[in-house]
Amino acid sequence: MLSYLQKLKAAQEKNNSWLCVGLDPDPNRLRVDALKWDDPVLPFNKAIIDATADLVCAYKPNLGFYLQWGAAGIIALERTIAYIPREIPIILDCKTGDIGHTQAAWARGLFYEWAVDAITVNPFVGSDAVIPALKDHPDKAVYILARTSNPSAADFQGDLQARTGLSAAVLTRSQQWQTDGHKGYVAGATYPAELQIARELAPEANFLIPGIGAQGGDLAAAVRYGPDAVAGPVISASRSIIYANMQGDFAAAAREAALATRAQINAQRPG
Amino acid sequence: MLSYLQKLKAAQEKNNSWLCVGLDPDPNRLRVDALKWDDPVLPFNKAIIDATADLVCAYKPNLGFYLQWGAAGIIALERTIAYIPREIPIILDCKTGDIGHTQAAWARGLFYEWAVDAITVNPFVGSDAVIPALKDHPDKAVYILARTSNPSAADFQGDLQARTGLSAAVLTRSQQWQTDGHKGYVAGATYPAELQIARELAPEANFLIPGIGAQGGDLAAAVRYGPDAVAGPVISASRSIIYANMQGDFAAAAREAALATRAQINAQRPG
Repeated sequence: MLSYLQKLKAAQEKNNSWLCVGLDPDPNRLRVDALKWDDPVLPFNKAIIDATADLVCAYKPNLGFYLQWGAAGIIALERTIAYIPREIPIILDCKTGDIGHTQAAWARGLFYEWAVDAITVNPFVGSDAVIPALKDHPDKAVYILARTSNPSAADFQGDLQARTGLSAAVLTRSQQWQTDGHKGYVAGATYPAELQIARELAPEANFLIPGIGAQGGDLAAAVRYGPDAVAGPVISASRSIIYANMQGDFAAAAREAALATRAQINAQRPG
Repeated sequence: MLSYLQKLKAAQEKNNSWLCVGLDPDPNRLRVDALKWDDPVLPFNKAIIDATADLVCAYKPNLGFYLQWGAAGIIALERTIAYIPREIPIILDCKTGDIGHTQAAWARGLFYEWAVDAITVNPFVGSDAVIPALKDHPDKAVYILARTSNPSAADFQGDLQARTGLSAAVLTRSQQWQTDGHKGYVAGATYPAELQIARELAPEANFLIPGIGAQGGDLAAAVRYGPDAVAGPVISASRSIIYANMQGDFAAAAREAALATRAQINAQRPG
């Protein structure tokens, strides 16, 4: 059985890419030519996947964008997961942070029923959100929120540059927890100085780095501080890829945007 | 349009109850006589609802227990929501904590597509998880995690008795955020001293109090520090009610357990 990091590394090498495309179907942003379908989510996603599958190291559907359509959206998500080529890791961005046996139920659904490769986890409740999520899933991974990319991240996440507060505590303490699968971290490219500290505090963890697209994060910092000893980071962009062009062919525009973003990432990589 | 607190108060008065039953279908705990159905979730929930609808002030399905069955579980959740009598508030326990437009998508699904009355929200990412969740939903509520009921709550939530750390910061700062709907808080009965401080720091907020059932929390503290000026607290129990009896009729046993728990709560209430 491949470990998560082995699968990720193989996809990164095959497609020469650290780019992850977020599959976030938004009814306010879907192009008119996607909305011609009665249920636009699945055909939209299929067209995006067809256009980008040779350019990415992972896909990252966000659960909220599917739940907003109710059960119909969840069915579209299951079919999207089934459509993604087997060799490309799927990271379900659900930011789940429940406790104990409830978090184990989440993991059963996401890792077993849906067979995604990794999920994002919110550590507010402590180790009870992380250890049960990976229990009996040695080939899976969680990405623990360490420093999120959003404007209000500093409300409660503390001063990571000073190595104090919540983000620093999450990065240092959670590495001590014994888990069956891999523990990675989410650290946004919108806070490059904090990203550097996160890498110093967690030298061996894989990083999922959002914020380089529409949020305007620091791509150079993501490439510099992103890699671990085994694999490259998962550098995620959603809106800047899948909604790249509101006028023409959305899938062709997504391919152009993915090509350009992969090239921007690779231009920063040494050698 | 009734506000959330008005709807909750009406249900509390009609059923003389502060008890909320958690609807958490667990494949390892469902009785054999529930498992006779091909899809056991919906008939199990219907039997529990039939047996307890005159005894509760709210129902609290936990999203993880439905997602563990994939899309089939989400369909069962939609049908469960549709089956619950209209006058009883539904709190979807999803602990969602995404950011900005993504959190708005979550809220669209949960408040608009599913029409639940309240959701639980994880504040790790700051105000970006709370303000968008309630935007344009003035008759809905969120319960922000303040002090969770689980053993590892203290990993990151700080020393609430000393009014320092994450729980204290969440309680004080989040009250300043301007939101369209009601902001309540989750504070576990397993930490009664912290529950008291939470009430002092947030005197006007409704409290969702888990932990009195299988987790062994302090019921007297929940009743003493739970009420706000408008309504009583939502005191939640799941396993101790819905899996009260593994031998006989599970629905009849759930009714007995709900009757007993409601009586225990009401015995602590003044006058």
